Amino acid sequence: MTAPLLDQLISALRILPGVGPKSAQRMAYHVLERDRERGAELARVLAEAVEVIGRCDSCRDFSQDALCPLCRAPGRERGQLCVVESPADRLAIEQATGFRGLYYVLLGRLSPLDGIGPVELGLELLGQRLAQGEVGELIIATSATVEGEATAHYLAQLARRHGVRPSRLAQGLPLGGELEYVDRGTLSHAFGSRAEVPR
Amino acid sequence: MTAPLLDQLISALRILPGVGPKSAQRMAYHVLERDRERGAELARVLAEAVEVIGRCDSCRDFSQDALCPLCRAPGRERGQLCVVESPADRLAIEQATGFRGLYYVLLGRLSPLDGIGPVELGLELLGQRLAQGEVGELIIATSATVEGEATAHYLAQLARRHGVRPSRLAQGLPLGGELEYVDRGTLSHAFGSRAEVPR
Ligand SMILES: [Zn+2]
Ligand SMILES: [Zn+2]
Repeated sequence: MTAPLLDQLISALRILPGVGPKSAQRMAYHVLERDRERGAELARVLAEAVEVIGRCDSCRDFSQDALCPLCRAPGRERGQLCVVESPADRLAIEQATGFRGLYYVLLGRLSPLDGIGPVELGLELLGQRLAQGEVGELIIATSATVEGEATAHYLAQLARRHGVRPSRLAQGLPLGGELEYVDRGTLSHAFGSRAEVPR
Repeated sequence: MTAPLLDQLISALRILPGVGPKSAQRMAYHVLERDRERGAELARVLAEAVEVIGRCDSCRDFSQDALCPLCRAPGRERGQLCVVESPADRLAIEQATGFRGLYYVLLGRLSPLDGIGPVELGLELLGQRLAQGEVGELIIATSATVEGEATAHYLAQLARRHGVRPSRLAQGLPLGGELEYVDRGTLSHAFGSRAEVPR
């Protein structure tokens, strides 16, 4: 008895992570009752975003252009490459540390059970980048979770295979913690006292 | 350093109820990483919904047409009017009971502290409807919450003022419970043993 378009909206909202049938319903009602103007704005921005936003050719972060603003920025140190799991982690490091090198954004971490392997994370591309010889240090800033550690281990091996020195953020990250939630001071300290990965 | 359009998307997602900065970010990344096609579909449906979906002239439920399918349906008993808080509650009653009358959908309940009074709930329109004399019984199916009870009290008085008999779903709804989460049997029983509201 509900309007079909409303049903469509409720079911379309469920593509968002963490949104079940009840919250999709609540979202649809909320937008229709109180926020149509901003609902229309969300629709417009979302349509444009999925159309326009791609991945940066260099760091693989989301980007509207072939190269993202950070990779285009002059004066970054090209010999240091910091691997992070997400754009949010990259932002956290930019804001908390004095790092002036470049980044590589995985958009995930190794998780064989979820079908996320080296290919899904673009690690072949990273291997090619390391093979070019410009990078001297690969700073591995994956999270202190089990999967983040497994990813770090893989990355360290990849770096060594190409004669690049791998380093890992220092102990100090809370165990099991997501990097982006760490307080600035802890993150800055851990970043500063990163150590070469022992063989 | 993030793409401006991505920032726009993250902030636009926050109009959805229950979505904070972190979950908006997670939603944006998820759509861009894994679900662009369905993201585009959500954008399309949302744009159309906020444009096209209005309120039914008769029951005030969301509707694409001036009259919703249920209000247009032949053979409904026009002397019984059941007041519910939401389209979901209406659907629950349709599915659980044999009710064949009509509905009135408040899209909310009285909540003076939130600025939701009789006007916001369209109760003047309901008064006009009751004044027409077609309705003999006003079945009050607001939730068993404090605000739902206050709304029920107001509705009962409104009904009596127009010489309409108010009834309330029978005890049996769990206290403090949202009507739409009640199991079918309980809801059907409570609906069947509704009682006239005592003065
Ligand atoms: Zn880049
Ligand atoms: Zn209607």
